[in-house]
Amino acid sequence: MKPGQAAPVTLDDLQAPLRSRLEAVQDELRRIVAADFGLITEVNAHLFRMQGKMFRPTLVLLADEATGGPEPRAVTLGAVVELVHLATLVHDDSVDHSVLRRGLPTVNSIFSHQVSVIMGDYLYSRAVIELVRLDDLEPLRVLGRVTNEMTIGEMRQLLSHDRLSFDEEAYDLLIRSKTASLVAGACEVGALGGAPEHRRTLARFGDSLGMAFQIVDDLLDYTEDAAVTGKPSGLDLREHKVTLPLIAALPRMPESGRREVAQLMRTEEPGADQVDRVIALVSDAGGLEYARERAMHFAEAADADLDRLPPSPARESLRASITYVLERRR
Amino acid sequence: MKPGQAAPVTLDDLQAPLRSRLEAVQDELRRIVAADFGLITEVNAHLFRMQGKMFRPTLVLLADEATGGPEPRAVTLGAVVELVHLATLVHDDSVDHSVLRRGLPTVNSIFSHQVSVIMGDYLYSRAVIELVRLDDLEPLRVLGRVTNEMTIGEMRQLLSHDRLSFDEEAYDLLIRSKTASLVAGACEVGALGGAPEHRRTLARFGDSLGMAFQIVDDLLDYTEDAAVTGKPSGLDLREHKVTLPLIAALPRMPESGRREVAQLMRTEEPGADQVDRVIALVSDAGGLEYARERAMHFAEAADADLDRLPPSPARESLRASITYVLERRR
Repeated sequence: MKPGQAAPVTLDDLQAPLRSRLEAVQDELRRIVAADFGLITEVNAHLFRMQGKMFRPTLVLLADEATGGPEPRAVTLGAVVELVHLATLVHDDSVDHSVLRRGLPTVNSIFSHQVSVIMGDYLYSRAVIELVRLDDLEPLRVLGRVTNEMTIGEMRQLLSHDRLSFDEEAYDLLIRSKTASLVAGACEVGALGGAPEHRRTLARFGDSLGMAFQIVDDLLDYTEDAAVTGKPSGLDLREHKVTLPLIAALPRMPESGRREVAQLMRTEEPGADQVDRVIALVSDAGGLEYARERAMHFAEAADADLDRLPPSPARESLRASITYVLERRR
Repeated sequence: MKPGQAAPVTLDDLQAPLRSRLEAVQDELRRIVAADFGLITEVNAHLFRMQGKMFRPTLVLLADEATGGPEPRAVTLGAVVELVHLATLVHDDSVDHSVLRRGLPTVNSIFSHQVSVIMGDYLYSRAVIELVRLDDLEPLRVLGRVTNEMTIGEMRQLLSHDRLSFDEEAYDLLIRSKTASLVAGACEVGALGGAPEHRRTLARFGDSLGMAFQIVDDLLDYTEDAAVTGKPSGLDLREHKVTLPLIAALPRMPESGRREVAQLMRTEEPGADQVDRVIALVSDAGGLEYARERAMHFAEAADADLDRLPPSPARESLRASITYVLERRR
């Protein structure tokens, strides 16, 4: 069965067998970031309130179990991977001047831009300290490389704004460095206790899964109804972010459509009607269809990688994670 | 002879015997930060133009030579320590919205706040990658701890603004985490090739030297004539930064003086006259004298630490670095 044709998979389904280990990851995370300093404790408390879905630690634990685990240190590695993700979000929100994240105010909006920059550095250096404590250079090798790739992804992101010449090759480079690198890193550090070829396989699996994840994320911006308006949020378009649906649609649009897109990019705060019209243009030109196909392409590559691992319930959970990524609605 | 009673020492004097190794540090630094990405290459070029005095790599090399070196990897460690320092400056300038650093525009003012945050992360993760390449957890252990301490120092700094209740104990904690931690880290990683007791001695020496360094820095703001005005710059006071001279002077000031200081802290952009008057009040109340005594206290502690090392030309250069720190004018 091809990915995407399987029965719907929720993240809860995936995480149910890992529940107690994921709770241990949470405890580790709290231990690692704890500080004897009031302001940091306050920011930490806020970060735990806006806690995400723990998708990356889930991958660390599954990769661990699929390659000979459970190993106790996979729990710590899961916490560190989530911590790196958190540190990145804090800096991203500060860079983008974002006000909300997961429905809650961002650190930069509640505290300040200053606190965000320092707090991201705090979290990241706590991650390094924790990895040193594991007394093994390999996770540091993986996550040092990954965090560096993510900064280059952020730079690419800055340069992608407003640029209709931004093409699919540049988009792939962007999402690979921004998103797929950490998903691949999560799978790779989870597999460090296993055979070297399984480490390579899981890194490749994570890369494909991460690519699919980000393409779906960018698609959802065009397709999913926002709770308030009942219409697609189109946030990326409003912020002049050029993503795959638009990149794919542009050359297939009538000239009048391209002019309308260019007009939106020149409008500092595009109105809802303008955004809706461009979403329709992108859809009519087959941009959504194309992006869905690309996500499916990466999903199939991820699925094929898993065949190189020995059969296990964890391997099948990793397979189900591909379906989750393709089918998620937010 | 007590430190400070010795003949004047310039940084050039200290660095002359290390010239070729310091050039190798520069080459390493360029190699480590090099990127195949235009924007990063541009920011790097700018950072090299505003290149500092290489004080921290000098300490790494001297600590190395004083504990059995020269070891080749001390050059790389010197470059990484300077890189961590650079990453911190880039984020600090962004946090403080500073416009100038060493007479040149800051990264945030030339490029953007966004580029500064990402670039600091880029530099820091390059440092981690380079330390992993050395295949030794010890430098990572030291510098992971140090960079984390520095983030706490930055948080303390945020909280010190405008606060006349900021006392000497809080000041010591602030400058120890903000400044002394990396100076101590530089000395400690330089000594990693030597005996464990020398590593501890050099870490302690660096802590005292770093404390003296920052106190002198804060004093210079009250005493050194700015090139343009020919009067003390008083920049810290203008920015409402409470440092040791003011902390020491406040309880010894007449009530009218304290009111004048409080008035300055309430003034968003204090005028030159207001700043000059507070500098005079601080000086009259013995604040400068007190800060000088504290710097001397730390200098003497640093000097005593050096007696625990075997005699060598590098040890005497480290001794001379104390004199340089006490006597520098900028």
